[in-house]
Amino acid sequence: MINFTVGPVQMDKETRKLGLNQIPYFRTPEFSSLMKENEKLLCKDFDAPQNSRVVFMTGSGTASMEACVQNLYTKNDKVLVVNGGSFGQRLVELCELFEIPFEEIKLEYGSPLTKSILDAYDNKGFTGFLIQLCETSTGVKYNMDLVGNFCKKNNCLLFVDAISGFLADEFSMTRYNIDVAITGSQKALSLPPSLSFIVLNEKAQNIVNQNKVRSMYFNLADYLKNGERGQTPFTPAVGSLIQLNEKLKRIEKNGGIKAENLKYSERAEYFRNKIQSLPFKIFTAPEDSSNCVTALMHTDPSVNAYSIFEVLKDEYKIWICPNGGDLKEKIFRVGHIGSISKKDINTLIKAFKALQKRGLI
Amino acid sequence: MINFTVGPVQMDKETRKLGLNQIPYFRTPEFSSLMKENEKLLCKDFDAPQNSRVVFMTGSGTASMEACVQNLYTKNDKVLVVNGGSFGQRLVELCELFEIPFEEIKLEYGSPLTKSILDAYDNKGFTGFLIQLCETSTGVKYNMDLVGNFCKKNNCLLFVDAISGFLADEFSMTRYNIDVAITGSQKALSLPPSLSFIVLNEKAQNIVNQNKVRSMYFNLADYLKNGERGQTPFTPAVGSLIQLNEKLKRIEKNGGIKAENLKYSERAEYFRNKIQSLPFKIFTAPEDSSNCVTALMHTDPSVNAYSIFEVLKDEYKIWICPNGGDLKEKIFRVGHIGSISKKDINTLIKAFKALQKRGLI
Repeated sequence: MINFTVGPVQMDKETRKLGLNQIPYFRTPEFSSLMKENEKLLCKDFDAPQNSRVVFMTGSGTASMEACVQNLYTKNDKVLVVNGGSFGQRLVELCELFEIPFEEIKLEYGSPLTKSILDAYDNKGFTGFLIQLCETSTGVKYNMDLVGNFCKKNNCLLFVDAISGFLADEFSMTRYNIDVAITGSQKALSLPPSLSFIVLNEKAQNIVNQNKVRSMYFNLADYLKNGERGQTPFTPAVGSLIQLNEKLKRIEKNGGIKAENLKYSERAEYFRNKIQSLPFKIFTAPEDSSNCVTALMHTDPSVNAYSIFEVLKDEYKIWICPNGGDLKEKIFRVGHIGSISKKDINTLIKAFKALQKRGLI
Repeated sequence: MINFTVGPVQMDKETRKLGLNQIPYFRTPEFSSLMKENEKLLCKDFDAPQNSRVVFMTGSGTASMEACVQNLYTKNDKVLVVNGGSFGQRLVELCELFEIPFEEIKLEYGSPLTKSILDAYDNKGFTGFLIQLCETSTGVKYNMDLVGNFCKKNNCLLFVDAISGFLADEFSMTRYNIDVAITGSQKALSLPPSLSFIVLNEKAQNIVNQNKVRSMYFNLADYLKNGERGQTPFTPAVGSLIQLNEKLKRIEKNGGIKAENLKYSERAEYFRNKIQSLPFKIFTAPEDSSNCVTALMHTDPSVNAYSIFEVLKDEYKIWICPNGGDLKEKIFRVGHIGSISKKDINTLIKAFKALQKRGLI
């Protein structure tokens, strides 16, 4: 199977090879030093300000989203949540669950957050801001310059879910005034799913250390404390943390984050050029499109998007990424993250053309 | 390195080989059917009553402990917690955190729960009972017949943390009247760490479906609902769930749970016989000892247990399992779970004898 989903994605051969190894005991100075290196390299790749720290969470991206909402904000906050798809919706639900006072900027799916929308919330006493870098359900990449400036001016604690955008899209905690950002192992890092990573600047660490949370597993202060000696409070996904270490060092060796961004931007562009002759419409405007995924709809709205996913899976050994919920039959997505070659993309294009010939699209 | 810790443990070659594979997209009928098979086999291996269900949690064993305390008990309960070591202590802390009214049976480390201790709590209005099958920090295996009968008579909802005991020690949810039991991937199942499993009987499912919890990631009702179609609410550790499937089918093929129990009991006995000539004392009485681990102390209390761990690691390429907290310098443990051969055990014994010759133990 060729995998064009947005996670788990195709792993590099170096990562897979490590999957064959025995997993070491981890309460050792040797593993601690690997973890300290992981922390240093992740901070660098997030372009995090000095003295930032990383929490290594064994759990999906949602685990880290929940941990952040619960640890960073309280009933005394008033936060602004950008909801432009199913992952923005998840942030809204987490604020409801933890009774964090919030207002929601509900965007039409596929639409960007603009300055004129945001201006309406200026000087309204907001203390926090929650947003995705890339709303994975639609492929929209938000304007982080805009968001970062708003948060600086309004003194908002800015949380960015960069789960699928990290490595694929340009990103900098320092430049965009981001206090906390997260990503997941099974996205552009191309590791097995099970881990998510939370990068916190000093301000965020102070808040986490002061807040009292009703969770043991999501008590970020405990992770920060254990992390000082390169450890986690509970047994983590040790094998994948070793794969992370190899991957981060390889990124470093191959030109760092800039080279990664470029690779993904070229890959997304290559795909988007190739589909121009097909009866598809890209769901997002070019300037608002993330490099990590392209959401597509058929020019004929009666063609069922989920059927395209099914026929490619069953007859062409290709996974594209179906949507859930309301968009399930309208939109499908093609992911660009993971170990995908031009040849893989050409195979997908050929399959689309075959479907066209068969009158299926 | 040879690994005698209690997790992550040495994996079988079949498991490791699967670690080399790409990880498939999982929102498919193919993966759902693998998950339904995982559920069926785990229920069988837990000897769970008909209509039991399994929650597949991506997270350490503590994640599942927290999820269970939070989802199964409320402020209207009065629960009894057995605390005979650091994992019993963790159950106590979870009850405190979630404000579940509780009483604690604090046992001396290494000591069993006896009928005379338990009798004092009979007919005192307890509604819940929390205990380990094996208290991993000391190697004590609790008498589940005793506990099961107490809970039946007192109508207590019985939660058993079988994280490290499962497969190694005899266990049956049906026979011991257990409502909920959990285990972890990196223990006797010998998979990579990142997953824990919660098996719930019908009574426990009904409670979970009625209780309202303040967590998205630990909302067990949501897992049960998604599980009906063989899915999880959030991206799970897909690769390890595939490894679980292969392992569970292999257990089945090789004689099932009885053959597993026998293998571990023979292995523990082999080790315990071999150390009789060494200056160690087993921390637990034979009739209270789990097959999963042996906790040892030197006959001379001035010998530092942690130093034995360090010298075996650095000079003999062997990991035994140090203890944390108060027991760190008094006790070390030798795990029997995972893919350990007689040859591995003989190598460890030889290393102990070499330490003896060197005057280090």
